[in-house]
Amino acid sequence: MTPTIGILGGGQLGLMLLQAAIDWNLRVHILDPDAEAPCRHLCTQFTEGSLTDYDTVYQFGQAVDVLTIEIERVNVEALETLEREGKRVFPQPSVIRLIQDKRLQKQFYLDHNLPTADFILTENRADVALLEIHQPDFFPAFHKLGRDGYDGRGVQRIASVADVGKAFDAPGVLEKAVDFEKELAVIVARNERGDVQTFPTVEMVFHPELNLVEYLFAPAEVPEEINQQAQDIARRTADAFGIVGLLAVELFLTKSGEILINEVAPRPHNSGHHTMRANVTSQFEQHWRAILNYPLGDTTAYQPAAMVNLLGEDGHTGPAVYEGLETLLAIPGVFPFLYGKAITKPFRKMGHITVMDNSLAALREKVTEVRAGIRVIT
Amino acid sequence: MTPTIGILGGGQLGLMLLQAAIDWNLRVHILDPDAEAPCRHLCTQFTEGSLTDYDTVYQFGQAVDVLTIEIERVNVEALETLEREGKRVFPQPSVIRLIQDKRLQKQFYLDHNLPTADFILTENRADVALLEIHQPDFFPAFHKLGRDGYDGRGVQRIASVADVGKAFDAPGVLEKAVDFEKELAVIVARNERGDVQTFPTVEMVFHPELNLVEYLFAPAEVPEEINQQAQDIARRTADAFGIVGLLAVELFLTKSGEILINEVAPRPHNSGHHTMRANVTSQFEQHWRAILNYPLGDTTAYQPAAMVNLLGEDGHTGPAVYEGLETLLAIPGVFPFLYGKAITKPFRKMGHITVMDNSLAALREKVTEVRAGIRVIT
Repeated sequence: MTPTIGILGGGQLGLMLLQAAIDWNLRVHILDPDAEAPCRHLCTQFTEGSLTDYDTVYQFGQAVDVLTIEIERVNVEALETLEREGKRVFPQPSVIRLIQDKRLQKQFYLDHNLPTADFILTENRADVALLEIHQPDFFPAFHKLGRDGYDGRGVQRIASVADVGKAFDAPGVLEKAVDFEKELAVIVARNERGDVQTFPTVEMVFHPELNLVEYLFAPAEVPEEINQQAQDIARRTADAFGIVGLLAVELFLTKSGEILINEVAPRPHNSGHHTMRANVTSQFEQHWRAILNYPLGDTTAYQPAAMVNLLGEDGHTGPAVYEGLETLLAIPGVFPFLYGKAITKPFRKMGHITVMDNSLAALREKVTEVRAGIRVIT
Repeated sequence: MTPTIGILGGGQLGLMLLQAAIDWNLRVHILDPDAEAPCRHLCTQFTEGSLTDYDTVYQFGQAVDVLTIEIERVNVEALETLEREGKRVFPQPSVIRLIQDKRLQKQFYLDHNLPTADFILTENRADVALLEIHQPDFFPAFHKLGRDGYDGRGVQRIASVADVGKAFDAPGVLEKAVDFEKELAVIVARNERGDVQTFPTVEMVFHPELNLVEYLFAPAEVPEEINQQAQDIARRTADAFGIVGLLAVELFLTKSGEILINEVAPRPHNSGHHTMRANVTSQFEQHWRAILNYPLGDTTAYQPAAMVNLLGEDGHTGPAVYEGLETLLAIPGVFPFLYGKAITKPFRKMGHITVMDNSLAALREKVTEVRAGIRVIT
């Protein structure tokens, strides 16, 4: 177990990958543009540099045996060159390229017979305006920027002609709004030899305005048949991409009982943070197993779990103070995890809290207590 | 949660403390004499320097808010000065001083009415020789060096006059051999406000010749009454020391059903490594909770667990190769943890493997499979 691994990105996902890497004494280099990135002091070697600059990524990749990512906005051309030169790059640059662009991603689902909401590719805002006139039944819809949208940015709801001004004047995809009952997610891992393993289905609860996951539960409270469909779609999606690494598959469960792919991320994901505490193998260890071509780990959960995002309080910008943290530590089965970001901003992801209990009912009560008990202020 | 913490020692225990520290984004400085110590790249700041030199320890301690240890052989005088100057040092220097010297430790048990094997303090080898003549009934006995014995070094079995030459010609303690049924251990944590919490009792299986733990099981297979006694003695010992931090209490269960304290360590301990995977709170997180005066964590186990020490194979000295590691990764509930030591030596602790299963019987089978499946060679 001696390869040197490079991660593009040194944020919280990198941090949790590093924590899991300690078990196997993996040597990990990190590239991040922020000199004070959370991973700064916890890796074998830290390089401050741009993730989107060809030369920087190429040079960083030269020094490692295996290259991976914790964020999709990276220079794919450099990764392609490295791959051509024989470097092991997982997920594969071709997969990152597909997923970086929501237009290509949607087309991919269509081409591979994977269920997803109806969509129309658009080149600019005028396209959206024309569709509003000629296909009014397609609305309400979401207009998504093709590239560089993340964490709720790059998505606009277009309900009527009055909203057309919010559409992006750039290549995008217009997605018919799904009348969904629930949002689910399944994280799936695939290694080079083609083994595939899923984590139990989780159920996400979104913040009504911010389009950020507020908390999630695992296992999802859905009929077993729905669960099996969700698991099956996640597996088929990973196989269709041929990805090596983790793929987080976010799903809509429609009111008519259909499951549609919302979007995917080719890396560890917010919807799997609870697995660090609640499952035999965490998503982070699973990522290492997948990209190092080891046998994939058992994903069984020890107990039902929830994950609460710890967001910066509205109206607070400055050095972070975690009010109530000590009180939380007194509750059994409550596990705060802080990302080490010095500065808090309104709704910035500052950490998360895993909550575990014997039943989903007890868990929900505990989540309420946890959410009320902590604030990130200045 | 902003104190800067210093750890004296950067070996495997430090490494596991650092891994646990990531959850709470603790800033940790490490002092270790080895420039290539396992903790080298995984802490906020690494200082290469002697743990036994007054000035080095004193200066290192100046830069942190809370100082702790992962090894007892440290300069206690420097810690005492730092404590006098208002630095928070846990475990307290007075406790480390007591435990560093097996003579003081044994006397402490006697003074505090804590059960331990009969002993006689000796000043030199001649004392042992005289005792062999005047108190032959006291033998077989173990002669233990007062200071600086560790990992089986500093202990000699004296069965008869023929063995007297093996006794240490230095201050020591002669301990009457205990006819024991089992060896047990209980790790206990105590914080500044005096809360005390124990981990479930473990049962140790020693290598017949090397006096090193080969593997252990938790929970120990003992009657509940014995378990309660072991737990109670561990609590009382922590209270007697008034320790802030972890105390690992190693115990003998005699053939007549008595429990005697063998020895203690004021830090995370080999007998608690499985808690990283098997228990709600690991011993490492518990150490942080104790010394930062946070509420102590729930120590409940999710499943029965075993811990196998991964020792360097006899006859192999050089760069380490972990033969069979990948095969182990394919077995559910088997978790290797490598210490990142570049060089293996016969019987050197190179890592450990946590094994979990639903029953102790299944666990024992899996342990046999694991022990047969891996070797650290060159």
